[in-house]
Amino acid sequence: MRVRKLLFTPGPLTTSETVKQAMLEDVGSRDHEFVNAVKEIGSELMRIGHISKEEGYECVIMQGSGTFGIESVVSSVIKKNDTLLVLVNGAYGERIVKMAVIHQLNHQVLRFEEDEIVTPEASLKYLQAHPEITHVACIHSETTTGLFNPIAEIGAVCRKQNAVFIVDAMSSFGGIELDIKESQIDFLVSSSNKCIEGVPGFAFVLCKNAELAKAKGQARSLSLDLYDQWKGLETNGQFRFTPPTLSIMAFRQALKELEAEGGVSAREKRYRTNKMVLDKGMKELGFSQYLNKEIQGYIITSFLYPDNPHFNFDRFYNKLNDRGFVIYPGKLSKANAFRIGNIGQIFPDDVSALIVAIREVLAEEKISLTVTA
Amino acid sequence: MRVRKLLFTPGPLTTSETVKQAMLEDVGSRDHEFVNAVKEIGSELMRIGHISKEEGYECVIMQGSGTFGIESVVSSVIKKNDTLLVLVNGAYGERIVKMAVIHQLNHQVLRFEEDEIVTPEASLKYLQAHPEITHVACIHSETTTGLFNPIAEIGAVCRKQNAVFIVDAMSSFGGIELDIKESQIDFLVSSSNKCIEGVPGFAFVLCKNAELAKAKGQARSLSLDLYDQWKGLETNGQFRFTPPTLSIMAFRQALKELEAEGGVSAREKRYRTNKMVLDKGMKELGFSQYLNKEIQGYIITSFLYPDNPHFNFDRFYNKLNDRGFVIYPGKLSKANAFRIGNIGQIFPDDVSALIVAIREVLAEEKISLTVTA
Repeated sequence: MRVRKLLFTPGPLTTSETVKQAMLEDVGSRDHEFVNAVKEIGSELMRIGHISKEEGYECVIMQGSGTFGIESVVSSVIKKNDTLLVLVNGAYGERIVKMAVIHQLNHQVLRFEEDEIVTPEASLKYLQAHPEITHVACIHSETTTGLFNPIAEIGAVCRKQNAVFIVDAMSSFGGIELDIKESQIDFLVSSSNKCIEGVPGFAFVLCKNAELAKAKGQARSLSLDLYDQWKGLETNGQFRFTPPTLSIMAFRQALKELEAEGGVSAREKRYRTNKMVLDKGMKELGFSQYLNKEIQGYIITSFLYPDNPHFNFDRFYNKLNDRGFVIYPGKLSKANAFRIGNIGQIFPDDVSALIVAIREVLAEEKISLTVTA
Repeated sequence: MRVRKLLFTPGPLTTSETVKQAMLEDVGSRDHEFVNAVKEIGSELMRIGHISKEEGYECVIMQGSGTFGIESVVSSVIKKNDTLLVLVNGAYGERIVKMAVIHQLNHQVLRFEEDEIVTPEASLKYLQAHPEITHVACIHSETTTGLFNPIAEIGAVCRKQNAVFIVDAMSSFGGIELDIKESQIDFLVSSSNKCIEGVPGFAFVLCKNAELAKAKGQARSLSLDLYDQWKGLETNGQFRFTPPTLSIMAFRQALKELEAEGGVSAREKRYRTNKMVLDKGMKELGFSQYLNKEIQGYIITSFLYPDNPHFNFDRFYNKLNDRGFVIYPGKLSKANAFRIGNIGQIFPDDVSALIVAIREVLAEEKISLTVTA
């Protein structure tokens, strides 16, 4: 049995030893060293998103999971008389709808099939027909399936229609080149344990200062008040409430390692190579992908359960797990699938090793699949 | 300069090397190993609180800081027609009032002076005069000052008046013997980075199943929905949203170390000894405490700024910090004070070392204090 497990999941991910080691020293949450680390992280995240404070953008770290970050935006930014349009083609889009319902926001939903992208054309048409819409929310990399929505094009539509654009870039930010300003994004949310390859503990919001300012006094909870969180950090560099100090120290290290790898473009290249090795290997084994190749991203892939009576996902999962490879269950509404992620400290050789392990497990389970050319 | 800083704060605290080392292995959030760790933590926390699932109690872990845990209770449990009474004698009580305002809960506030405890007598009188009150919230160890409120006695009053009792035991749970059932507590909230001596990342709620069940569909946010969070964990052992996996693994180790130390009573003894060494040393240096001795707890102490023109807190703080000792600013509304905590992996010798450092800094700063007998 391998000691070190490799996580082929959408996160929490495999992280480097040095990222984890950055958590080996206690640090006070009001201490200068920590306050400086938080500042450094903010600047670096903005640099990665091709924005800066000088250009009118801010970075707000929010305790909790990525969902907490999304909810802090949705529940702080959309005012009583605003109307939110949620563009949905998967479970993460539906999650934003759920938030809109709970917070009793005026909202509308434009749904696409789970295996189709959100199209800029349909979004434009909808916005033109509904001038009451003030805010639009969309997922960049829909982890449900693994598809990429065309964020920059949708951003252009929002700009055209004068709507504030909120993007859930949870599983994409840091793993794909993205210019926040050019893509007309007003609020982008991601988390510590995705493509930056930190450990879980917090979300972060990159946003336009002018839009953030409008959220003052608007939040529908204390903990998830985006404006107050920013204001606290801005005033004295301190969090209003205890931050996950060590996750933050690990994240600072992760950002350094992203830079050392060659930045986002180098990381994107590695993930794309992982995906190529995965695609080739899984195809050779006889697995089919859920999505059409054209819209499939390289972050995570949904593979259909093989049409074989011996296939049992739990056994398949456990046997891979025993070999040190952690894969992920599916989340599709209409098909049985499992997911394999390519992000985190995973390299092409690791993906090859996973393929070998899957081959072994299939043999053990007496599952032979038909390989199509 | 010391490499390892000692944190004399209310948390995040100094933790053991082995607790931090428990974060050196990546773990999947849906993996059996992790799911088992979460279950183990739940049982162990209940054992520490002298309750169990069999007796009708539950443990719910909530991502974020302690405040997130408190807000998850307050915003999930108190229904539209309920009325919450907040018993306040410090900033943490006021924070609950703030939540009640934001969530537009029916609520009333019974305020005591910051240097006085919440008395069971006044609480009873108030409840008798206000039969509309259905829920009562109180802080156990008010970190603002460092006093202990008489939780068991207030619990008896709540039981007598048939009110649900919510206790913020953030900085006390695990450091003081507390029988949740005997103290008539329905919801107790604490966090990972206090007396259990884990690292920050989450809060936990120990609560009566029958009361938790009433919160179904009542929450005012998605992320902080206490019932849904419990339901998710109960159904398949998994979090609804990404948990702080490594903080949780560290916490499991911290619980083992609490047990190895001799449980809560041994830890209480160590903290009390720390406090004795602190009191003696600070008195010899000429510092005065804000609270009367009778109501002062042993978790954290507020020391008044010395009446000396050379005293500058920032310089005092920085010089101690340079020596590896991290203290904490004050939070009193009426007096200038700083705080020194006794919790975390801090031992009497560490407190003695802090006293030596404070003596050095006072000498450097040319501050001589009048020592009273």
